[in-house]
Amino acid sequence: MKSRLSQQLHFLLEVDRLKSVERQNHCVHAKRRENSAEHSWHLALFALVLDLPTSVDRYRVIQMLLLHDLVEIDAGDTFAYDEEGHGDKLARETAAAERLFGLLPQAQGASLLEIWKEFEAQDSPEARAAAAIDRFQPILLNRYSDDPSWARHGIRRDQVLTRNGIIEHEFPELWSRLLQLTEEAVAMGILLP
Amino acid sequence: MKSRLSQQLHFLLEVDRLKSVERQNHCVHAKRRENSAEHSWHLALFALVLDLPTSVDRYRVIQMLLLHDLVEIDAGDTFAYDEEGHGDKLARETAAAERLFGLLPQAQGASLLEIWKEFEAQDSPEARAAAAIDRFQPILLNRYSDDPSWARHGIRRDQVLTRNGIIEHEFPELWSRLLQLTEEAVAMGILLP
Repeated sequence: MKSRLSQQLHFLLEVDRLKSVERQNHCVHAKRRENSAEHSWHLALFALVLDLPTSVDRYRVIQMLLLHDLVEIDAGDTFAYDEEGHGDKLARETAAAERLFGLLPQAQGASLLEIWKEFEAQDSPEARAAAAIDRFQPILLNRYSDDPSWARHGIRRDQVLTRNGIIEHEFPELWSRLLQLTEEAVAMGILLP
Repeated sequence: MKSRLSQQLHFLLEVDRLKSVERQNHCVHAKRRENSAEHSWHLALFALVLDLPTSVDRYRVIQMLLLHDLVEIDAGDTFAYDEEGHGDKLARETAAAERLFGLLPQAQGASLLEIWKEFEAQDSPEARAAAAIDRFQPILLNRYSDDPSWARHGIRRDQVLTRNGIIEHEFPELWSRLLQLTEEAVAMGILLP
């Protein structure tokens, strides 16, 4: 039987794999694709810094954002506009979450799995705030990066607006900014009208 | 005058630069150096998962770890065993912290600067827990990575033990593990005796 610490370190070594999962969008300053580990860090900073509704538990949002992409270690990153990939995404990711959080001491793993499931279910204010941040960050990076994934994949502005409607309800000010960023992107020729 | 949101997004775009700051240690699974953004994410997960003394405010430790390396955007990463680089490290990093947190709305920037200063001052249990995690993680990665920075720089085990004494006082169980990991590293020939 492994000690608690050994189980925790096993988990912490395993999650190092997230640094190898590449996303479609580029970083703004590094001229390369962003990986899901540094993306998760960036999102946690968004959650630390942006004005959230006062009723939202910011710490829980940050925990969700630190954990939400771990499932990509097994399931890979599914591009936001890949409709086929989204078909079996939940099944693939649930199996991954159970394997990864299952490396931890039982009660601890169950509690982190709950946080991940809450994010996926999107029925708490914290889960919706985390999702809005997860959607907004790549839009900001795409607008300012040298190689926007929108252009590479021929994405249209209405696809971006439809997919990110959740931001409109949760964060009206961020939504106005999103409208402005995507308008600029169309004018720059990196997003189809 | 920029809006609060514009100031916050300016800060969040600027911190994207941390993804380009390379550390000396390699990732375990990705065969390349770790960058300071993904390192910060990894440390936040250590803080989320490891057993900390119950009196320690885990959320504050996580905030510290998310923020503590931002100063490297201006000041660069100083290798743990670079004695010369450590001479003016605090002055370089303080200027960096003031510039970066100064991008935020005034009260918010001041409050994050306080968190960074608390980490640097090492006189709270949260700051010491954050530092212990920041020290332990590269030891774990070095032990398991394909290209340990210890070997590249000819580091001796006594240097590792001296530099990381803080772990002994704060986390005796982690310290025992550190002794074991560094013993194994000497046996593997990746750390000098």
